[in-house]
Amino acid sequence: MLNFTFRNPTKILFGKGRIADIHNEIPTGKKVLITYGGGSIKANGVLEQVKKALSGCNVSEFAGIEPNPTYEKLMQCVHIVRTFKIDFLLAVGGGSVIDGTKFIAAAAFYEGDPWEMLAGGNAKITKALPFGTVLTLPATGSEMNSNAVITNKALCAKLAFGSPLLFPVFSVLDPQTTYTLPARQISNGVVDAFVHITEQYLTYPVDAKVQDRFAEGLLLTLIEEGPKALKEPLSYDVRANLMWSATLALNFLIGSGVPQDWTTHMIGHEITAFKGVDHAATLAIVLPSLLKLKREEKKGKLLQYGQRVWGITEGTDDERIDKTIEKTAQFFESMGIAIHLSDYGITEENIQVIVDQLITHGMVKLGERGTVTPDVARDILKLSL
Amino acid sequence: MLNFTFRNPTKILFGKGRIADIHNEIPTGKKVLITYGGGSIKANGVLEQVKKALSGCNVSEFAGIEPNPTYEKLMQCVHIVRTFKIDFLLAVGGGSVIDGTKFIAAAAFYEGDPWEMLAGGNAKITKALPFGTVLTLPATGSEMNSNAVITNKALCAKLAFGSPLLFPVFSVLDPQTTYTLPARQISNGVVDAFVHITEQYLTYPVDAKVQDRFAEGLLLTLIEEGPKALKEPLSYDVRANLMWSATLALNFLIGSGVPQDWTTHMIGHEITAFKGVDHAATLAIVLPSLLKLKREEKKGKLLQYGQRVWGITEGTDDERIDKTIEKTAQFFESMGIAIHLSDYGITEENIQVIVDQLITHGMVKLGERGTVTPDVARDILKLSL
Repeated sequence: MLNFTFRNPTKILFGKGRIADIHNEIPTGKKVLITYGGGSIKANGVLEQVKKALSGCNVSEFAGIEPNPTYEKLMQCVHIVRTFKIDFLLAVGGGSVIDGTKFIAAAAFYEGDPWEMLAGGNAKITKALPFGTVLTLPATGSEMNSNAVITNKALCAKLAFGSPLLFPVFSVLDPQTTYTLPARQISNGVVDAFVHITEQYLTYPVDAKVQDRFAEGLLLTLIEEGPKALKEPLSYDVRANLMWSATLALNFLIGSGVPQDWTTHMIGHEITAFKGVDHAATLAIVLPSLLKLKREEKKGKLLQYGQRVWGITEGTDDERIDKTIEKTAQFFESMGIAIHLSDYGITEENIQVIVDQLITHGMVKLGERGTVTPDVARDILKLSL
Repeated sequence: MLNFTFRNPTKILFGKGRIADIHNEIPTGKKVLITYGGGSIKANGVLEQVKKALSGCNVSEFAGIEPNPTYEKLMQCVHIVRTFKIDFLLAVGGGSVIDGTKFIAAAAFYEGDPWEMLAGGNAKITKALPFGTVLTLPATGSEMNSNAVITNKALCAKLAFGSPLLFPVFSVLDPQTTYTLPARQISNGVVDAFVHITEQYLTYPVDAKVQDRFAEGLLLTLIEEGPKALKEPLSYDVRANLMWSATLALNFLIGSGVPQDWTTHMIGHEITAFKGVDHAATLAIVLPSLLKLKREEKKGKLLQYGQRVWGITEGTDDERIDKTIEKTAQFFESMGIAIHLSDYGITEENIQVIVDQLITHGMVKLGERGTVTPDVARDILKLSL
């Protein structure tokens, strides 16, 4: 096992009706700004529940945070936060709203252009507004970690940042809020969570038995519950298992003490930045090709993954690995997600642009061993056509 | 899945040489009191490492906290803390030292007799000294939770208490500190952690797939690594897996959203209070009998446990459950722990005294369904003779 530091102070309020409890979590007398995306939380009654829970507080709203939240939009909110001296942010939505709110929380106190927090190597985040979240879409894990990914439209860039100051103070996870999600968002969420786990698991073995088993437990749960969530959208337990799995997939626990490989996300971000493809779809496109090309480096874990998660025990190592990758790709497809670049109108001619973006963003030595160079990234993308 | 609230802010510094990092975790200028037990941390060099890491700080020491730490001893330390206005406690040792330090941290500010925090139904803990820990014995999980168990010799009582204010600020887990542990303490630690898991797992199913799989992952790891830890005391990875398993066994994660059954611990505490039997041994004595007597109530989970943890899939349900309980008892014995009351000089005549203690401490409706009455506890103890 590798050395690690783990800390995650976010308080989770999980279950039916927990939105009503948020008034206990925000100090009285604070100016609260509710941040959200489109109107879905109005349509499904979640915004109303939140406002009811905060009745008596000084509450205002900021709407319109996009999927793949943009610097441009978020800076409007930063201006409001500074002008009206907001004390507490409450993100109501999915990972995009929560990520955007993390940016706002940090940018509110940042001197200089807050984009430096993502693109400036030495940018220091020394203070952030406290914030809570009400999660309505199980997917990114942002509700229980301190990272965020923000898009800069002008620069055609989608970059990550984080700080120990950016853990939500609390997050409400009521699985009932997910009943009204479109199938596409459930599918995306399941695939996103799935790939968060593989990024922390499909590397090389370091005899970290607990982390491996936790990762496998989450993968097995997503494989069981993902398809059920599409077929039985009103099953509470299915949604609850999905929600808790997606949160634990990226709360730093399973990644502590093990090598990590964020290649799939990094290449995926560039595909989204280039052509607006859903984040989860980019992961489903990239992961199988990455695993095929890096099958030797990842051999030990691929065999373990095939055996423990997919029950594949027959055949030569190569046959087992082939079957394991095939099962993974089929799972993504069974969730209704197309896994080829061509399905999204991206052709061979576009690949170099995406590779160039990776280079621009310094992503030239990706992978748990730093062996995913731009050339390898190009091969991965070609294999994904 | 049941509703739950989860929060655990303790920062974990895990791995080789991490003791050297504690100076970053304690604010400068604080009066630090190092608390510990016997002299083992002097003999194995851990105390020296700690002092070196804190060189330049204002550090004093309080030694002699016992296994099953006593109110009587701890109150001596409370007096010192108050007199010398200590700002920060640093527990160096196993669960007893850490539990004792939690008591000291809370008692320092408690008005009235601090024993009320354990025995007084309405005692309120409103403030506690901050403290860190350096763990040297993987077992209780106290290094990453907010509970403690304290013994009152005068009252012949061993009781638990807890408060959200009693999470360690940080805990250092360096598996190398466990190399010099006697085999008995390793065995006790493995069994203690094992039963912490079963108390949160062997109840009734609520379709909490993640919690179940995490619990099973921890049990499997303890079963694999426990015996290895005895045979290969200098294997770093074995000790690392053991240490991280024991911590995660009781940091509130696997118990969130599922029913819990602390019967084994509650009866075990009374056996220790009555005759000073090692805590882990009392658990190894009680658990198999509890499972035998409550096999119907626990049927669903016993079958799942047998299958996923012990690979038992053949036979009738009853046969599978018999074999599962047998495997569990054999595992405790394989760790060198005798599992009968008679092995510790406790006879049938003593049982009523133990049952009376349970009644005195209000433990009259134990178990996930509250069906372990004093009569059932008596039957469990008789079956354990």
